[in-house]
Amino acid sequence: MTSDLRTGGPLLNDTAFLLARANAQSLAAAHAALAEHGLRVRSYTVLALAVSEERLSQRDIAEYLRLDPSQVVALVDDLQTRGLVTREPDPNDRRAKAVIATPAGRRLHTQAEAAVNAAERDLLSVLAADEQAVLRDLLLRLGFPA
Amino acid sequence: MTSDLRTGGPLLNDTAFLLARANAQSLAAAHAALAEHGLRVRSYTVLALAVSEERLSQRDIAEYLRLDPSQVVALVDDLQTRGLVTREPDPNDRRAKAVIATPAGRRLHTQAEAAVNAAERDLLSVLAADEQAVLRDLLLRLGFPA
Repeated sequence: MTSDLRTGGPLLNDTAFLLARANAQSLAAAHAALAEHGLRVRSYTVLALAVSEERLSQRDIAEYLRLDPSQVVALVDDLQTRGLVTREPDPNDRRAKAVIATPAGRRLHTQAEAAVNAAERDLLSVLAADEQAVLRDLLLRLGFPA
Repeated sequence: MTSDLRTGGPLLNDTAFLLARANAQSLAAAHAALAEHGLRVRSYTVLALAVSEERLSQRDIAEYLRLDPSQVVALVDDLQTRGLVTREPDPNDRRAKAVIATPAGRRLHTQAEAAVNAAERDLLSVLAADEQAVLRDLLLRLGFPA
């Protein structure tokens, strides 16, 4: 039935539905790729931010990922229990703590990133390279309006 | 901090992250628009499919929305309890039942659709009309690979 709906389905002119559908495909592929590394998409994303040089607080991470701060606390707790991240005091703001990946967290991230990137390349292979770049630009402007 | 991350964030070259972020913006806008009509995004989407001429079964709906069939059963149960849809036997397959909107369901859908469309227009207004069309085409091909 999908092939019929693809050409004549009732929601196919609806950008919100198409965003949700494409995101669901992407999440399913990423979850499958991350499973063998013991991560889910949300914990992987938090780990990726902890690996970056941004020194983000839990509040920054919540805003960036559009999650509730309490969800981020639970995700960071889990990663910290597993020895993958630590909470370090921010020299500029004693009340804030930055979430920083440990060496073990960096190693796991490197492996998980390779798996996720391979899954993403596979998913995006239906689009030409220049179309992939256009898609990224449009999504960036939609997801982070000025 | 968002403005810094917009230009230099660690995940901004990652299409999967950008899809998730744009989808989160879209879902938040749709949920806000639907709340006054007593619907959430998932129940609204099921109702929209029930309004269409497709005569979809619960299994069709689950595949189209990438939900677990048990989730669709719960959503249809809720809409049926509220008198918004019925389950009608399929003349071509006695075991299958099509999910069909009632007159009350059609009326609610018309109102909710107007609210959702206004929210979507607002969200998409950061893109030009031709860019919006390109985005729909790219998402369609990503969400429904041939």
